[in-house]
Amino acid sequence: MSKNLTTRADDYSKWYNELVVKADLAENSGVRGCMVIKPYGYAIWEKMQGELDRMFKETGHQNAYFPLFVPKSMFEAEEKNAEGFAKECAIVTHYRLKNDPDRPGKLMVDPNAKLEEELIVRPTSEAIIWSTYKGWVQSYRDLPLLINQWANVVRWEMRTRLFLRTAEFLWQEGHTAHATKAEAIEESEKMMNVYADFAENFMAIPVIKGIKTETERFAGAEETYCIEALMQDGKALQAGTSHFLGQNFAKAFDVKFANAEGKQEYVWGTSWGVSTRLMGALVMTHSDDQGLVLPPSLAPIQVVIVPIYKSDEQLALISAEVNILTAALRKLNISVKFDDRTTQKPGFKFAEWELKGVPVRIAVGPKDLENGTFEVARRDTLSKEVISKDEIETYVSDLLKQIQKELFEKALDYRNTHITEVNSFDEFKEVLETKGGFVSAHWDGTAATEEKIKDLTKATIRCIPLDRVEVMGSCVFTGESSVGRVLFAKAY
Amino acid sequence: MSKNLTTRADDYSKWYNELVVKADLAENSGVRGCMVIKPYGYAIWEKMQGELDRMFKETGHQNAYFPLFVPKSMFEAEEKNAEGFAKECAIVTHYRLKNDPDRPGKLMVDPNAKLEEELIVRPTSEAIIWSTYKGWVQSYRDLPLLINQWANVVRWEMRTRLFLRTAEFLWQEGHTAHATKAEAIEESEKMMNVYADFAENFMAIPVIKGIKTETERFAGAEETYCIEALMQDGKALQAGTSHFLGQNFAKAFDVKFANAEGKQEYVWGTSWGVSTRLMGALVMTHSDDQGLVLPPSLAPIQVVIVPIYKSDEQLALISAEVNILTAALRKLNISVKFDDRTTQKPGFKFAEWELKGVPVRIAVGPKDLENGTFEVARRDTLSKEVISKDEIETYVSDLLKQIQKELFEKALDYRNTHITEVNSFDEFKEVLETKGGFVSAHWDGTAATEEKIKDLTKATIRCIPLDRVEVMGSCVFTGESSVGRVLFAKAY
Repeated sequence: MSKNLTTRADDYSKWYNELVVKADLAENSGVRGCMVIKPYGYAIWEKMQGELDRMFKETGHQNAYFPLFVPKSMFEAEEKNAEGFAKECAIVTHYRLKNDPDRPGKLMVDPNAKLEEELIVRPTSEAIIWSTYKGWVQSYRDLPLLINQWANVVRWEMRTRLFLRTAEFLWQEGHTAHATKAEAIEESEKMMNVYADFAENFMAIPVIKGIKTETERFAGAEETYCIEALMQDGKALQAGTSHFLGQNFAKAFDVKFANAEGKQEYVWGTSWGVSTRLMGALVMTHSDDQGLVLPPSLAPIQVVIVPIYKSDEQLALISAEVNILTAALRKLNISVKFDDRTTQKPGFKFAEWELKGVPVRIAVGPKDLENGTFEVARRDTLSKEVISKDEIETYVSDLLKQIQKELFEKALDYRNTHITEVNSFDEFKEVLETKGGFVSAHWDGTAATEEKIKDLTKATIRCIPLDRVEVMGSCVFTGESSVGRVLFAKAY
Repeated sequence: MSKNLTTRADDYSKWYNELVVKADLAENSGVRGCMVIKPYGYAIWEKMQGELDRMFKETGHQNAYFPLFVPKSMFEAEEKNAEGFAKECAIVTHYRLKNDPDRPGKLMVDPNAKLEEELIVRPTSEAIIWSTYKGWVQSYRDLPLLINQWANVVRWEMRTRLFLRTAEFLWQEGHTAHATKAEAIEESEKMMNVYADFAENFMAIPVIKGIKTETERFAGAEETYCIEALMQDGKALQAGTSHFLGQNFAKAFDVKFANAEGKQEYVWGTSWGVSTRLMGALVMTHSDDQGLVLPPSLAPIQVVIVPIYKSDEQLALISAEVNILTAALRKLNISVKFDDRTTQKPGFKFAEWELKGVPVRIAVGPKDLENGTFEVARRDTLSKEVISKDEIETYVSDLLKQIQKELFEKALDYRNTHITEVNSFDEFKEVLETKGGFVSAHWDGTAATEEKIKDLTKATIRCIPLDRVEVMGSCVFTGESSVGRVLFAKAY
């Protein structure tokens, strides 16, 4: 299999687009801005879903499902949220097609089937969910409501890229309601931590936890917590957000409860989500010029076994040996594929599984049969070892754990060496242009400065890190006083 | 908790609607025709999904995801399919809202953001999927394509009912492509069998396998296989369909492959689906005037334990005993809830869990502590037994299996006694009106007769059973010759 993959050094963006398609993760569809997630890509997404769903349930959440459509009047009830999404809404206006008299066999929108009220295809579900919560909450005994939804949402983006920015995408959105402000803030922070745990320990992607500036905050939120990752080209990627909504949606949808003293109060809310965008983060964090590199915890196939043979007899002998190994590995919950296709040569198979990021490849030939060995290759380092039959199971099992750990460490090392403190705007611009990554700088706290820096450099404030040290300094742009550094970066 | 549930005898339809809402399965939303699936209902749907997904994967299928929208020109490419769904399509025509100059703070559809081509919200995905398959299939080596999608679809129904008929619903849709006609037919039949297996062994709903008449066939299919269930009011419900599509979609979307001889041929297709409609079938097959009755395999909570106590000391002693039992049952993979709410009396709790259909209820009071016993109640029969501590785990574990089996047998018995052979149209009408159920009758094979019978009786041909005996007879309506009996019924 010829990969012909553009290298990252040549054109990172092109490398990404090609890799997503060639590795069978996704492709553009015949519908503007919408992608098809192919089986191999979807299998990775299913692994993410499974783990996140488990984590949500362990933290007390239940799944539910709310309508795809939001009537316009409901959509606009929370004004900031409505305004934030108004410019990118797909809108249903009619409910029937009819035969087109001018084009036999073709259809046209039936002008007599106009909806009385337009329906917005949900760009996010706060409006529809809070309008429902009104009926679910009467007393403090009904709280908290801890609900998650797995769904598709639509945002009419003008410039789209597979996984990173698509008109339709898949996500989960948690929506919770609480009796007190403190409890709602605790929930927002808890879910940010769940996301960080998932990103680091499951996806092997190091993230920085922080809060967004007012400019970058979710429309309708009082505070947006986020996790920010760094891609190999030095650009940041927001990998998940968790919003403290205050009482904004409760007020917009009149969701009140009787507290223990019988007094009516507005409910406090949160919402939080991650999406198929994480697939883009996965690709751009670990992969290389040979193709995908998948952390073992996300790999649909963790181990591929390729037979090297010249005759059917050899293949039969190898297969017998492989079947024993396969069964043993599966007992350890390792997913194994025996690639015994007779239509392709080993070299083709090696390249194909490299492209698809299978973490461990085992090759077995007649020599190995003689010696009682297997040749084990790591996808991430492209290194090989010959391992004896007696040790192979333990070796592979340990190796998968080691790869998972080392992928994280490698990404962490890259990330840590790409956070640069700067103390002047010249330095700021130079670091951004030459090295990229996060630029840690003092900022005067105003939206005006944030905006000007963005106009001049394309860098935005990715977050105010939660663990930042509060030290007085001077804004890198205006020289005004600052209470601590924030992280700037160009971002996806 | 006061149930105040309308009885089935009084008003079956009202009983169903009330039960779905009161048992927290689903409710109507603020969006016309769209429902909210509540956490308890969604938990049951997740169990269905989990089992079906496992069965699909075991039969070689992979999941993928295709766009929500279908451009109009793509939608109309397969004419029969387009015509079949044209009258109930939600159509996106615009992609932006703007501030309404006449209503400060409100939004209106931006007339400058009209789409060049309207987008249909998928009512089913054959069009978008076959337009994608064109790019995926070149040679016979690319076949078969065995793909499933979990998704939401929209059909603009004018009269809707929770789960049974909603504008938006959740489903899975399998779409496969094959090199030969025989293989595609085999696939359609295989998936009908998977659905029947699932309905009977997991949902405890007996079904009749059959094929649809031309009138009732899926728009664009050459043959529609189905499984038909019978509800307690004597009406039938189509519980799943599997379509042999012939080469219709391959021709409409130009999906060809090079066969082993290098000759270009059109691909053969199938599609198959089940939806949240199954939730309606579940409710209407097993439940009673006290509320839901859930088969253990679908119950989010299989066993609920209610303490009976007068003092905190008693509750503490009971809790200690219950914790041991809970842990033991969970080890057996039984899902258990200990309802230790102090805000509600046991009678309230009994009624609530009855309403919610928890298969087994265990009550423990001070007397039980003394005697080393538990009181075990079955939801389906409402019978109780006192069981000693030593036997409780085995007893409960066996009881769950027994309930699953007996629910199926009870439903099967009802179904079997509600298939009535008739030999005159008077008899046909009488059976339909007085007894209901399936009416097994000879039919002359014409759509005209089918239509007339439907107009006169509201009964449709549910299916031509696959296991029917081919015997000559006379059509119950026209007296013309017939090659075997078909099943008529009024249907959901």
